[in-house]
Amino acid sequence: MRKLGLIAGGGDLPIRLAGQCEAVGRPLFVIRLKGMADPAMKAFDGIEAGIAELGKGFAALKAAGCEAICLAGIVKRPDFAALKPDLRGLRALPGAIAAARKGDDALLRFLIAEFESEGFHVEGAHEVAGGMTLAHGRLGALAPGPAHLLDVHKAFHVAHEIGRLDVGQGAVVCEGLVLAVEAQEGTDAMLERCSGLPQTLRGSPEARKGVLAKRPKPIQEQRVDLPAIGVATVQGAARAGLAGIVGEAGKTLVMDHDAVAKAADQLGLFVYGLDPADLPPDWAE
Amino acid sequence: MRKLGLIAGGGDLPIRLAGQCEAVGRPLFVIRLKGMADPAMKAFDGIEAGIAELGKGFAALKAAGCEAICLAGIVKRPDFAALKPDLRGLRALPGAIAAARKGDDALLRFLIAEFESEGFHVEGAHEVAGGMTLAHGRLGALAPGPAHLLDVHKAFHVAHEIGRLDVGQGAVVCEGLVLAVEAQEGTDAMLERCSGLPQTLRGSPEARKGVLAKRPKPIQEQRVDLPAIGVATVQGAARAGLAGIVGEAGKTLVMDHDAVAKAADQLGLFVYGLDPADLPPDWAE
Repeated sequence: MRKLGLIAGGGDLPIRLAGQCEAVGRPLFVIRLKGMADPAMKAFDGIEAGIAELGKGFAALKAAGCEAICLAGIVKRPDFAALKPDLRGLRALPGAIAAARKGDDALLRFLIAEFESEGFHVEGAHEVAGGMTLAHGRLGALAPGPAHLLDVHKAFHVAHEIGRLDVGQGAVVCEGLVLAVEAQEGTDAMLERCSGLPQTLRGSPEARKGVLAKRPKPIQEQRVDLPAIGVATVQGAARAGLAGIVGEAGKTLVMDHDAVAKAADQLGLFVYGLDPADLPPDWAE
Repeated sequence: MRKLGLIAGGGDLPIRLAGQCEAVGRPLFVIRLKGMADPAMKAFDGIEAGIAELGKGFAALKAAGCEAICLAGIVKRPDFAALKPDLRGLRALPGAIAAARKGDDALLRFLIAEFESEGFHVEGAHEVAGGMTLAHGRLGALAPGPAHLLDVHKAFHVAHEIGRLDVGQGAVVCEGLVLAVEAQEGTDAMLERCSGLPQTLRGSPEARKGVLAKRPKPIQEQRVDLPAIGVATVQGAARAGLAGIVGEAGKTLVMDHDAVAKAADQLGLFVYGLDPADLPPDWAE
């Protein structure tokens, strides 16, 4: 397997991907993004670099013999005025600023093109770690029942549509009513907000109702920034009184299948991988 | 002028509409919705009724000689299982529940049809109070400048699109990035959320940037539930570091034009009424 350069932002995903490379014996080199990467990433061969130090990063990846790279983890939009770019980073900066004005997705596409222009093959996190995505069907013991279908289909639809607008990757629907839509605040904050809505609008741990749907933006560069479901997502959905979570099968990362399934079973929620082809005619895309 | 039956939910709007009727000498009768209407509404001739006491409400409106009615103010979705309908309310309940499952707008349409079936003419709040809507152009001293146009147009577009999905009536965009979209939490909570986002994503009182757009849902019954801008909206937008607010001209209620203009001028924000016909070709609807 060709050596992988992992560009590591924050959160668990880079740690899991690096572990997966070790498990299958794939050679690895890590660029730890300054102020973002988890300290645990220091356990792997690599260097630290600022987000605008493109020259430093490219040189290190080439010296380490990486042919492919993967961008993974949480990267907050930088304050462009406060960046400290090196020469190569400076060359890319005007293009990055122009792309950023068009939205998150345009910025990611721009970054990928920069890596490709240096000869790297760009892999998606789901390619690096086969089996990390949500499979078709239920993940834990529970599956959506007839009473959940309206919310499952509507949430899946709304998440798709707001993705088309480059707004975000998640939506919560309860009894046909859209309770919340995710933009820059992220899924955890959105679920927390649902917990604070009037009880007449939502379910409760005793009588769960409503569904969180997570989907990649249809317009997006799917090698970066796929939506993810982890134990925290299940716990947040449980606190909001939801009945379950649906994600797009094959296009939603699951952080630790066993732990997510166990949390879902314990809390009484379903986690389900849906294929757009499963949708009934009135929700067809 | 024919006598108006005002069905009063929560918030300031019913108080302002009742005051407007008094000012122009229009006869008025108020149904104060139990647990929602402001106590100030007791100053006007009327009765209190529960949201499912349709028989009581219809009878009182007819006895008072009302030919037209207006539904105004904030009405939270009821917990249908906990309602105490009278006989007429009971007859409407199955239809109301079925409509509610299709979304807020379907529920409002259903309620309007119920009033019409009893012979009432249904007026929109903007019809009852001419001059209460946002006019075309700037409301205070400031207008959007060239640096704001991308955000003005994108926020106006996103607010329209999420309205098409029956999600909500507002969106915030800053430098091309959608910071937040409003669903059940309401505009004030959405603006508060923006204030909590990383400073790199948003403006500040010293360097304002970003725009809140409010628009009616294109699918909606526009006689009820038009979006509204008040002093609190301006203050919330100011705290979020935004440069201004745009609304759809003629279809956005303004609660006290003078106070909103004054707050906007003091805080350094623009409030602007935009017509879809103003949009440049790449944002045309």
